[in-house]
Amino acid sequence: MAHELQPGLRDQLNQSGGGGQFLLEDITTEQIARRRGIYEPLTESVRDIIDATIRTEVEEADVAKARALVDEATALLRGKQIDGAYGIRYTSRGESMPWGNPVIGIRNPTAPPLFVERDETGRYWSDFTLGAAYEGPSAHVHGGVLALMLDHVLGEAASFDGTPSVTGTFEVRYLRTTPLGPLHIEAKTERREANKKYVNGHISDANGVTVEASGVFIIPRWAR
Amino acid sequence: MAHELQPGLRDQLNQSGGGGQFLLEDITTEQIARRRGIYEPLTESVRDIIDATIRTEVEEADVAKARALVDEATALLRGKQIDGAYGIRYTSRGESMPWGNPVIGIRNPTAPPLFVERDETGRYWSDFTLGAAYEGPSAHVHGGVLALMLDHVLGEAASFDGTPSVTGTFEVRYLRTTPLGPLHIEAKTERREANKKYVNGHISDANGVTVEASGVFIIPRWAR
Repeated sequence: MAHELQPGLRDQLNQSGGGGQFLLEDITTEQIARRRGIYEPLTESVRDIIDATIRTEVEEADVAKARALVDEATALLRGKQIDGAYGIRYTSRGESMPWGNPVIGIRNPTAPPLFVERDETGRYWSDFTLGAAYEGPSAHVHGGVLALMLDHVLGEAASFDGTPSVTGTFEVRYLRTTPLGPLHIEAKTERREANKKYVNGHISDANGVTVEASGVFIIPRWAR
Repeated sequence: MAHELQPGLRDQLNQSGGGGQFLLEDITTEQIARRRGIYEPLTESVRDIIDATIRTEVEEADVAKARALVDEATALLRGKQIDGAYGIRYTSRGESMPWGNPVIGIRNPTAPPLFVERDETGRYWSDFTLGAAYEGPSAHVHGGVLALMLDHVLGEAASFDGTPSVTGTFEVRYLRTTPLGPLHIEAKTERREANKKYVNGHISDANGVTVEASGVFIIPRWAR
């Protein structure tokens, strides 16, 4: 499923401030689904080998064989590729495909990925699971990874009203260490003052909140 | 090269507060180098396929072939593996191997990785490059990824005096968007008051600072 662009943002796509920020890729909804069907399983397989690469204890010969297979696969994939990074692609219907994103990107193997939901009150949330690739302290999530997830979801929550915004400042308060495994994240814009939006959020495990975050998001001049 | 543990931390490794946090793996310096020689090239190959997975435009048949090769490699690697995540391993000589870490881990394909240097004044820094896997806005680094890198390097800088510490609060100020490509990060502890350390840092590109960060790091009770 493609990601819906904010209505207000859609109109700004080709204007000066957003120049170069968005790539128009005017394909049909069916083509989007077809591409997702091709590339998402590959991404999941690469996520799996990331985990296996960290945890493997096999000997030199098998590691060398595995590496040769990976290099062969990479050569195949590089047979035709885009220049540079993926970008934020969208269709003229306003569907966006942030597929390269390191938090929600369905084509980015480093993303868990998070599937962020929202309700009509402006609450944004996701249930997700973090494994070996996100470890800081033994068996716990790296504090910076929690900051990465919070930065992203607070940013989505800041766009609840359709006005685009960029992160101004962002603060994280660590209450206790967060175990690897199933987690919950949520965020909501608490208030808007002129061109600033104040957004709060947190991450929790089964025993409650482990990290809180607050962000000030700024509506860029071109969108005011 | 193995990572030197802080002298003060080393003595705490088997004490209550650190219980379960560190894994003793008493291998020789030569064995560490041998393992690094086996697993680091594999990790680099997996980093390469992460990038190729995001950027490929090859058709369905080649994607399916690439995926089958990756799955075959994963099965080989999973022939023998550790339970759970990598953990923080160390030797009785005080060398630590944070190889699964998502910022500096030489066995974690999601890490750039950063190689953090330090001088005798307590300044910590690293020059590193971020590509497609770290993109937020088109051709720019995801703000949360910058927070991840800063959280980590500020945390290392907080340990400059050998006392362990955990992140209490952490604030990031975004001055402008940060382009993908070569970047510089640095951090330094500005002062210590009782059991708190105040650490500042920033990330810069060729044109100057793009993001600033401040963190308050707390010395855990067991280490006071």
